[in-house]
Amino acid sequence: MLKNRDIISILDFTKEEISYVLELSKRMERESSADMLKGKILANLFFEPSTRTRLSFETAMKRLGGDVIGFDDPDKTSTVKGESLKDSVKIIEGYCDIIVLRHFLEGASRLTADTVNVPVINAGDGASQHPTQTFLDLYTIKNTKGRLEGLSVGFLGDLKYGRTAHSLAYALAHFNSEMYFISPPSLRIPKDYIEQLQLRGVSYYEIDSLFEVSGKLDILYCTRIQKERFADPVEYEKVRGVYKLSRVVLDKLKIGNDLKILHPLPRVEEMDESLDTTEYAVYFQQAHSGVPVRKALLAAVLGVFQ
Amino acid sequence: MLKNRDIISILDFTKEEISYVLELSKRMERESSADMLKGKILANLFFEPSTRTRLSFETAMKRLGGDVIGFDDPDKTSTVKGESLKDSVKIIEGYCDIIVLRHFLEGASRLTADTVNVPVINAGDGASQHPTQTFLDLYTIKNTKGRLEGLSVGFLGDLKYGRTAHSLAYALAHFNSEMYFISPPSLRIPKDYIEQLQLRGVSYYEIDSLFEVSGKLDILYCTRIQKERFADPVEYEKVRGVYKLSRVVLDKLKIGNDLKILHPLPRVEEMDESLDTTEYAVYFQQAHSGVPVRKALLAAVLGVFQ
Amino acid sequence: MLKNRDIISILDFTKEEISYVLELSKRMERESSADMLKGKILANLFFEPSTRTRLSFETAMKRLGGDVIGFDDPDKTSTVKGESLKDSVKIIEGYCDIIVLRHFLEGASRLTADTVNVPVINAGDGASQHPTQTFLDLYTIKNTKGRLEGLSVGFLGDLKYGRTAHSLAYALAHFNSEMYFISPPSLRIPKDYIEQLQLRGVSYYEIDSLFEVSGKLDILYCTRIQKERFADPVEYEKVRGVYKLSRVVLDKLKIGNDLKILHPLPRVEEMDESLDTTEYAVYFQQAHSGVPVRKALLAAVLGVFQ
Repeated sequence: MLKNRDIISILDFTKEEISYVLELSKRMERESSADMLKGKILANLFFEPSTRTRLSFETAMKRLGGDVIGFDDPDKTSTVKGESLKDSVKIIEGYCDIIVLRHFLEGASRLTADTVNVPVINAGDGASQHPTQTFLDLYTIKNTKGRLEGLSVGFLGDLKYGRTAHSLAYALAHFNSEMYFISPPSLRIPKDYIEQLQLRGVSYYEIDSLFEVSGKLDILYCTRIQKERFADPVEYEKVRGVYKLSRVVLDKLKIGNDLKILHPLPRVEEMDESLDTTEYAVYFQQAHSGVPVRKALLAAVLGVFQ
Repeated sequence: MLKNRDIISILDFTKEEISYVLELSKRMERESSADMLKGKILANLFFEPSTRTRLSFETAMKRLGGDVIGFDDPDKTSTVKGESLKDSVKIIEGYCDIIVLRHFLEGASRLTADTVNVPVINAGDGASQHPTQTFLDLYTIKNTKGRLEGLSVGFLGDLKYGRTAHSLAYALAHFNSEMYFISPPSLRIPKDYIEQLQLRGVSYYEIDSLFEVSGKLDILYCTRIQKERFADPVEYEKVRGVYKLSRVVLDKLKIGNDLKILHPLPRVEEMDESLDTTEYAVYFQQAHSGVPVRKALLAAVLGVFQ
Repeated sequence: MLKNRDIISILDFTKEEISYVLELSKRMERESSADMLKGKILANLFFEPSTRTRLSFETAMKRLGGDVIGFDDPDKTSTVKGESLKDSVKIIEGYCDIIVLRHFLEGASRLTADTVNVPVINAGDGASQHPTQTFLDLYTIKNTKGRLEGLSVGFLGDLKYGRTAHSLAYALAHFNSEMYFISPPSLRIPKDYIEQLQLRGVSYYEIDSLFEVSGKLDILYCTRIQKERFADPVEYEKVRGVYKLSRVVLDKLKIGNDLKILHPLPRVEEMDESLDTTEYAVYFQQAHSGVPVRKALLAAVLGVFQ
């Protein structure tokens, strides 16, 4: 279904395609697939470092029998000699069967996909899209709740800059989610996104405190509040306490046992280690889902499933 | 024919050996070779970054079923602790079957080849030799013109420092080329090289402007004019216009349809994107030739063809 | 015998286990093992660069048919965003079958082993342990002398900070070695280590000059004297001459023909190139032993030998 497709934005995917990717991901965990991509080469082009994403793409490709070339330091590429991104990727497409691109500029993945003949997977470009993260978020939700349909999902933290939250909200709009955007007023989700969700008929609420809704949530998707984004440190100090999740805080919240907490990681101080051993925590499981989800996407795009 | 040979300089190769490498390269594009080097390990030792060269060697090795280890940042090697190049390569030869070396010092490849027992391929040392680049330049010319014998070849740009132009000229001296060295007076090809070409009976011309010869050329080999090399910016400004190739300039030149333009890349401003879609442009094809040519050299040196 | 064991410190190994690892290492040189670890992935996590160790682990894994992911530059990991080592390794364990860790902090490997479910091999943490180096030192001694039992072993140079010397001394305590610690007074082996050796009943001598014992030694284990460790440059100048080994110095020492000289490398000026071609020098052979020894450990820990 996805043969030769570029994976640029979660917005390019229909509900059926999303469900198909999640099913393939499940198959990837169950079935042997050791030689599926034998002889294929993935070029991991990281113009911005992201060890986690890079390594999980590498593992996914190698678990399928393929191999990987690439770089994670643009300072050592011809970019420093003034070469354009277009030239770089036109050359490298001659060395590989598929390109995975991480770039600091928004739109770099689309430009690359328009330039080369091999499929391109966006591994994050600028503040905009990181679709494989969204797929693995969805996969984790489905695995832990048994379904995607009709869930109550809270998004917590930096909803202004957090691209993973934006993309996940868009994707969940296909699945009749009720959404709670929990953030300090200064970090509210941007109006553009809200308008898109309204167009899709999503029920949503913008609130300040987790306490107001904690009993209603099936999923809580946490994000890191980036201190450096606050112009006024006093503002930061006002809110950071509310969003420091710990076992003690959860006890006070009187949440149901079925709540599952996700976080794209890395976390810093917004989520305490004491949570890790509770039944709520699924963020490490979420991180590990990067491998089956990326295996599914690589295999599909490279035409293994006709 | 080349089993266990070190590939240090194009000057070490006879006309027969060059032709043999080009034939093998062709075979590498046609024939399956997926397990030719299974179990072999290449050490990619890049004491100076060169992403393009590094990645195409990696792809070549992996396409043949071999594997690769290495580094591309000398700051993280024992060199910073004061270790000599000789010690470094004597240790690493114990980890691999073949060494590919990029080094900032002229002669580093020859020294390495004299030190270790595994074959060594020079991937560029200092301003002197980069033989695999020359092989892929020759391969591209042969592929696009159908022959190497008796061509009229223009070399354009920085002929003083451009090692790729020097090496290609030497190699083409085997094949009765007529050579046109087109550069501003300040970037003329060094006397030493000219004397060598004279000794080999090459017909050559040193000129300032592409306009004088554009109708006569089969091949135009462009190089990047490195602005920083000009002591006087006024001198640079005088010449840069002449060497900025574009579709418009080519139209004015009234060149024949059979002209093919090569460039070792990266390009900066000496060659406009408008050229890319013309039938003259073969520089991306040239870059992609790095893979079959390096596959041929790796397989030959590692004894696949007895 | 070692299935799923973490390899953290040479002190964790019994005499029988050490002998077992050395026998396996020998087998790894003799027997074909090309697909032993097919489908397995090693994560090479180098939070501190060490090219030699990294590359020999990579070669070992690839020679066994496995594959490798990893990094060698902590500045490009989530560590710079404030992520803890525990979080980093908990995520990465989901991508691999075994972790090899190099870290600048003492105890990092033990912490990692306690955190993850995959086996962990310590590739050097802080100034403390580097057990695979000790295994390859022992392997080299056994290969060159035919036995480990009852040897006279001199340790020369920086015995205060040289962790490789400390670990080797501990390991040789199992094998009735007589030990000579040869160093300037300012670089004597720390009291703690001496006490441990006394507890194990080791005969040892602390001396200043190699001349006193040169005729008695089977093995001389040299280490690099790190100039920067001396507060007073005059002190450094006093001793550096004594420890500059060369062919001329060895002739004066009237050593026996059976002496073998080891050095963990890199060397700087403490050992002259003139030694390299003598029958005493086994330090390059020692460096190359990193591959069979690491193959043995990887295969054993990953359960190839039940």
